Amino acid sequence: MSQPLILVTNDDGVHAPGIRALFAAVQSLGRAVIVAPERDNSAVSHSLTMNRPLRVHELEPDIHTIDGTPTDCVTIGMNKVLDRRPDLLVSGINPGPNLGDDISYSGTVSAAIEGTMYGVPSLAFSLAGAPPWDFEVAAGVAWKLAAMALEFGLPDDTLLNVNVPQRAAGEIRGICFTRQGRRIYRDAIQEIRDPWGRRYYWIGGGTVHWSGGNNTDESAVRRGCISVTPIQLDLTNHEGLDFLENKWKM
Amino acid sequence: MSQPLILVTNDDGVHAPGIRALFAAVQSLGRAVIVAPERDNSAVSHSLTMNRPLRVHELEPDIHTIDGTPTDCVTIGMNKVLDRRPDLLVSGINPGPNLGDDISYSGTVSAAIEGTMYGVPSLAFSLAGAPPWDFEVAAGVAWKLAAMALEFGLPDDTLLNVNVPQRAAGEIRGICFTRQGRRIYRDAIQEIRDPWGRRYYWIGGGTVHWSGGNNTDESAVRRGCISVTPIQLDLTNHEGLDFLENKWKM
Repeated sequence: MSQPLILVTNDDGVHAPGIRALFAAVQSLGRAVIVAPERDNSAVSHSLTMNRPLRVHELEPDIHTIDGTPTDCVTIGMNKVLDRRPDLLVSGINPGPNLGDDISYSGTVSAAIEGTMYGVPSLAFSLAGAPPWDFEVAAGVAWKLAAMALEFGLPDDTLLNVNVPQRAAGEIRGICFTRQGRRIYRDAIQEIRDPWGRRYYWIGGGTVHWSGGNNTDESAVRRGCISVTPIQLDLTNHEGLDFLENKWKM
Repeated sequence: MSQPLILVTNDDGVHAPGIRALFAAVQSLGRAVIVAPERDNSAVSHSLTMNRPLRVHELEPDIHTIDGTPTDCVTIGMNKVLDRRPDLLVSGINPGPNLGDDISYSGTVSAAIEGTMYGVPSLAFSLAGAPPWDFEVAAGVAWKLAAMALEFGLPDDTLLNVNVPQRAAGEIRGICFTRQGRRIYRDAIQEIRDPWGRRYYWIGGGTVHWSGGNNTDESAVRRGCISVTPIQLDLTNHEGLDFLENKWKM
């Protein structure tokens, strides 16, 4: 069998230190190819660019950029840049956590969702901490988890959302398989007045509360563990179907 | 008990005919209040505006606009416009379907996700068809389903994603409780050349295939049924946790 082919992408752009650390980390597992946005795309989340053409630029051998979003990079990377379907997709390493309800807004996770739609085992990596960022330990974790995904596979239609606490390697308390936590904002809208006394609202500030029990991604990271959350494409609440069929008298 | 309070929003903006039809339809169920974007927000999906202040404008009694996204409207509507937590949130009616994997990109559905995060039963309505749009039948369906949600409730942490086929009322084949389908694009990237012969890629076109079996949202709508899909906030693949704990040898 030929060596594994690994697609590497992110949402912060090809020049971000996080993707370079990830690219270096997975080199030993096979042939790694970057297809990443030209520049920071954190704000655009998981949109596809359909209203204009996109250009692929080969920056260096096996490092390609696209003037688009992370989802564009995965779609075009899979279909046009790589000459076969990759064996693995890795996204990140994002500087900052992607935990709980926030993952639905994350470009890092969106790239892994898109990879999963193509049937490719996909992992999203984020570094939970604050600047200055140091990706070394997280890159080691990414290497280990990527190797395991290649060896053992993933559940069908499921990606892994990985958050690594920014700590010295010796202070990390292992890998925890977790579920997605619930993030609750309180008093997160400030009322302000403009120079003419008119009222405006500014979303932000307030306090963040977490719920969802002990085994959540957020609680694991707070305890110093690496959280590994399996995220599924299917959003259907299958038990909810029973509720509707039994409780709703049509 | 006081009459139900119903928050009405959308992603196409306050002047869209779909939200006006929805607003009129739910009037008889309680007090309906619109808090909707000033203008079309279909492209911004479910982002929160945190980098600038937002202004609420009262267009008419119980019709408010915000210069922001659908998610902004729900957050500020819940916390600042309404004087108590609403009993129901309805979003739409979107001109065009929101089916299968596409719902993760939908502003209409995002507003209902945000409502669900606040613990408010939330329904997203879309009209599956093509222009010219006629919202009359879908508005009647919205009235019926909103009444049922008020009477029977929804499963916890779950919204309803409703797609109504654009047909005459007599040609609609009932309400089906469905699951989210899988959308697969084939050959959906066109290669083009610019005037200097350089290669570009344009995402779009190709063919769309659906999978996921008979009971999907897409198959129901295609058969002429109203699809009602319960969508959960929790993206965790709980069976996937067992897979990882048993199959991954750490």
